[in-house]
Amino acid sequence: MEFEQEKVERLLKKNFFISPSAHIYGGVSGLYDYGPYGCPLKNNFINFWRKFFIIEEMMYELDTTILTPYEVLKASGHVDKFCDLLVFDKVTGEFYRADHLLKQEFSKMEETDQIKRIIDNLDCLNIKECDEIIKAYEIKSPNNNELGNTTYFNLMFSTFIGPKTQNMAFLRPETAQGQFINFKKLYELNNSKLPFASASIGKVFRNEISPRSGLLRVREFEQAEIEYFVHPKEKDHPKFQTISDLKINLHFSKENEIQKTEKMSIGDAVKNKIINNQSLGYFIGRTKIFLEKIGINEEYLRFRQHKKDEMAHYACDCWDAEIYCSYGWIECVGIADRSCYDLTQHQMASKTNLNAHIQYSEPKCVEFWKPEIDKKAIASILKEKTGDFLKELNNLPEEFISKNLKNNILTFQNIEIKFIRNKKNIYVEEFVPGVIEPSFGIGRIIYCLCEHSFYTRKEDEERGVMKFVPRMAPLKVVITLLKQTPSLQLLLTNLKEEMSKNDISFLINTRNVSIGRKYASNDEIGVPFFITIDLQSMSDKKATIRERDTMEQIRVPLEKIPILIQQLCNNNVKWENLKNEYGLFVFKEEQNI
Amino acid sequence: MEFEQEKVERLLKKNFFISPSAHIYGGVSGLYDYGPYGCPLKNNFINFWRKFFIIEEMMYELDTTILTPYEVLKASGHVDKFCDLLVFDKVTGEFYRADHLLKQEFSKMEETDQIKRIIDNLDCLNIKECDEIIKAYEIKSPNNNELGNTTYFNLMFSTFIGPKTQNMAFLRPETAQGQFINFKKLYELNNSKLPFASASIGKVFRNEISPRSGLLRVREFEQAEIEYFVHPKEKDHPKFQTISDLKINLHFSKENEIQKTEKMSIGDAVKNKIINNQSLGYFIGRTKIFLEKIGINEEYLRFRQHKKDEMAHYACDCWDAEIYCSYGWIECVGIADRSCYDLTQHQMASKTNLNAHIQYSEPKCVEFWKPEIDKKAIASILKEKTGDFLKELNNLPEEFISKNLKNNILTFQNIEIKFIRNKKNIYVEEFVPGVIEPSFGIGRIIYCLCEHSFYTRKEDEERGVMKFVPRMAPLKVVITLLKQTPSLQLLLTNLKEEMSKNDISFLINTRNVSIGRKYASNDEIGVPFFITIDLQSMSDKKATIRERDTMEQIRVPLEKIPILIQQLCNNNVKWENLKNEYGLFVFKEEQNI
Repeated sequence: MEFEQEKVERLLKKNFFISPSAHIYGGVSGLYDYGPYGCPLKNNFINFWRKFFIIEEMMYELDTTILTPYEVLKASGHVDKFCDLLVFDKVTGEFYRADHLLKQEFSKMEETDQIKRIIDNLDCLNIKECDEIIKAYEIKSPNNNELGNTTYFNLMFSTFIGPKTQNMAFLRPETAQGQFINFKKLYELNNSKLPFASASIGKVFRNEISPRSGLLRVREFEQAEIEYFVHPKEKDHPKFQTISDLKINLHFSKENEIQKTEKMSIGDAVKNKIINNQSLGYFIGRTKIFLEKIGINEEYLRFRQHKKDEMAHYACDCWDAEIYCSYGWIECVGIADRSCYDLTQHQMASKTNLNAHIQYSEPKCVEFWKPEIDKKAIASILKEKTGDFLKELNNLPEEFISKNLKNNILTFQNIEIKFIRNKKNIYVEEFVPGVIEPSFGIGRIIYCLCEHSFYTRKEDEERGVMKFVPRMAPLKVVITLLKQTPSLQLLLTNLKEEMSKNDISFLINTRNVSIGRKYASNDEIGVPFFITIDLQSMSDKKATIRERDTMEQIRVPLEKIPILIQQLCNNNVKWENLKNEYGLFVFKEEQNI
Repeated sequence: MEFEQEKVERLLKKNFFISPSAHIYGGVSGLYDYGPYGCPLKNNFINFWRKFFIIEEMMYELDTTILTPYEVLKASGHVDKFCDLLVFDKVTGEFYRADHLLKQEFSKMEETDQIKRIIDNLDCLNIKECDEIIKAYEIKSPNNNELGNTTYFNLMFSTFIGPKTQNMAFLRPETAQGQFINFKKLYELNNSKLPFASASIGKVFRNEISPRSGLLRVREFEQAEIEYFVHPKEKDHPKFQTISDLKINLHFSKENEIQKTEKMSIGDAVKNKIINNQSLGYFIGRTKIFLEKIGINEEYLRFRQHKKDEMAHYACDCWDAEIYCSYGWIECVGIADRSCYDLTQHQMASKTNLNAHIQYSEPKCVEFWKPEIDKKAIASILKEKTGDFLKELNNLPEEFISKNLKNNILTFQNIEIKFIRNKKNIYVEEFVPGVIEPSFGIGRIIYCLCEHSFYTRKEDEERGVMKFVPRMAPLKVVITLLKQTPSLQLLLTNLKEEMSKNDISFLINTRNVSIGRKYASNDEIGVPFFITIDLQSMSDKKATIRERDTMEQIRVPLEKIPILIQQLCNNNVKWENLKNEYGLFVFKEEQNI
């Protein structure tokens, strides 16, 4: 299937689903406003996501602030690592994202093995490597000018809270950190039991260097993220059976071969250790069901496993839900087992206990790392700071120690400490929980959904139809009067009130154009049902409902319309059934003379 | 009635309705996270607001970006005027908001007429006046140190888009500007007809100097704003009759007396020119109905008219919905007739036509201001820029000219131009639409709602109850099993599934505590209905529902529970009626032995 990027984007802009922000001032690349059709489409996504994940799975929803103090994002690693490489044209002063520029330049060259290796590795360059490549291959700017030295550019927007410039803050680059730093309160709310999940839906910000690719690479977007807190050694999921037979397209590689797609059940993928654990598998399954329910074409959906070198160092497995569209395979949902990294980082930086614990009725023997402390030697270096140092040392999370230990030596605050493996009997086991994180990029999914939903009819190739499922459609109904008479107006007023009472979003089309043009504009914004009140409606108290994709019509009593529409939208009744019940209606012109 | 600030805030924090952001890092004043009960409370507000205003009134919802380019907020006046006066302690370097500090200091002094006048005028000081007062009254900092010179502090958070520091942007201080700059697209979508309304719900940001007052003065909060675009001379509202008999508390002054509250119908208030026009009155009425429906106590709600000197210079009338709570009367909704100011500003700054137009079938004679142009004189000053200047001059909106004209002279780009009143026949009238703006501060309303909802029972003064209406309650139902047996578990599982299917948010309380403690924790978070499955449920397939405020119980068939709960929450059935139908249930201990 060919996806029609240009036609879809034209339709979205023409009908004000979206529009470049501040367009009357020339706009800003990477910023888009959602208009009167895009906004409800996004709201429908969010409401359904909330029902499907948060309410159905009884997650704790949080709405944490966008403004995030420096300390939080320093601890999470974003201050140091959330960067792209930046180069600039020495003549024009224009900035470029180094990996994008190099990819563009190398793709013009003959593809030798060496160049292929460079291209594959562009994601992971550091400043020095980047400068070396630019020098070795004499890479120029797109204007054929010399490039300045490479620098890091942090992708977070920064600002200051209050009048003091020492209070630096960032616009959050993800909702996750706000959830992590509330872990302790959530854990208490959950009666100090694992597992449980929190979730957040909200705006996040990434200061892309020079965003292109329309709606897919933007600087401000909506994210829906789940953090599933779990015992790091017990990652089975209580509801795994409900999705284990589900077959999905997995894109992964066996033993360093190149990645290939294979359709298999999630149960098999977990059993064969392709997917690391049940909890990860469970969320992959739920994600697939969700995406299909909103109208993503299953054929163009795959779950791609991160390669070892592309995964964050702390993650133990990571899968992206990728959706295929005119831009290729697009990462739309990331589902990562982040192990205990995040809570460990915040525990150390905030010096707050973020452990979970299990109480045993019998003592349990456990192994742990114990520092061999030479107090005198330390005191000779640290002087009066020795006490604080020892306290911190004794509170180091096991997770941190085992990750950073080299030959049983840990370098902590520039001091080398030897650790030995020890055993003890405990009644309470304390540990840093693991986190499994499904993270949805809402704008990208919506864009892909628009491409998957778009089609044209043979008789009108220029005009598009959006076949949104009713649950997602920005409006459920358009209503029109075939004639403007006071008694028809009255029927309309009554119908409007009943529609409002039933929470159905609708539009009255009063434009003075043919019914055919009204259908066409209806179909273009993806409204599933179109109601016409005609002259006969006065006598038979009925109106016609037209279904968008079949273009078929039925004629039903006006009083039944709101409940029928509601049932159609909730999938409680099928169009087929209504057609059988009421019969196909064929419009006869003389009825309205 | 006494509102219990301390008890309410303790309850909200203890149950994680809210929590200071980044609390494990010490928190940041003026930033709060919404937790697992606060977040659904806010979601319920937003969903009901969307239904009540946007869907029922068929408004165009927009979601525009938070990041807003400099040009937009320069044109709107925020760059120059959205400031507070800042003073600092010369010794500690601590910053203070000047008006707050002065108010505090003057309230310690004897209240002479002069001091009273100063206090009344603190809102409107400029830098010079502020410095003079500090000097004259020898005002010191709270630490009794000398104060440095007063400066302006802009309340917008600023940042930079992309790597270039010339691309300055702000976090929007209101959603309104995003709507104004999309006016033209909305107008076209509405078939170039007035009136119509747009609406936005989203985060806004104000960099308060040193926010106190808990949840009432915060740096990041959610706003719901409507912009009703209307012909500036035709402000009658088509649905005015639906609210004209509504009696409301109006707080206003007649002929410069001090403001007093008077209860009167909106119809009378508009007729007597107390409220400027029907559209303003309509939104005042709708706001009152909305606030009552979510549970605000009508007795503690008033609409206060802005005094002439407190209103923005361009506004023609402005009313604040104020809600009384322990902090006093709090401004929660602003309903302002902003006249044509905003669109005029953006039209001039962006040089985009933001006019509406009316087509006449017969020519219509209209008056307008015409510049008397002495081209030679202008050319001698402006040289090659004369052409551009004349073009801009001829495109100046009428609104702008009449506001700025003094003795028929307009000073435009430092040149004095004389205007004369002229007449012409037109077929198309072009004009800048007026805007009426109801603007809701969601967090403030929610905080007041919490104070209005809180009460304690005589038998347990320490424990609070939140009497949220079902529509607003963060959870609709808590379910518990009186005994943990596999067959009761099965009943629970079935009930859970049915609840989920019906979109009812619920919680299972599995804590091993007495039923009395479960009720208490249920009441504290304001859950209206509590369901108990007991041993008898196995034989009679029934369970009890307890209503929070009456503490009465009924016993109903399990299969009927989801639909009954849904009807109770939607107000389609009353507890009284169910009590009559099923009879009061009194729990007998032996039933569960």
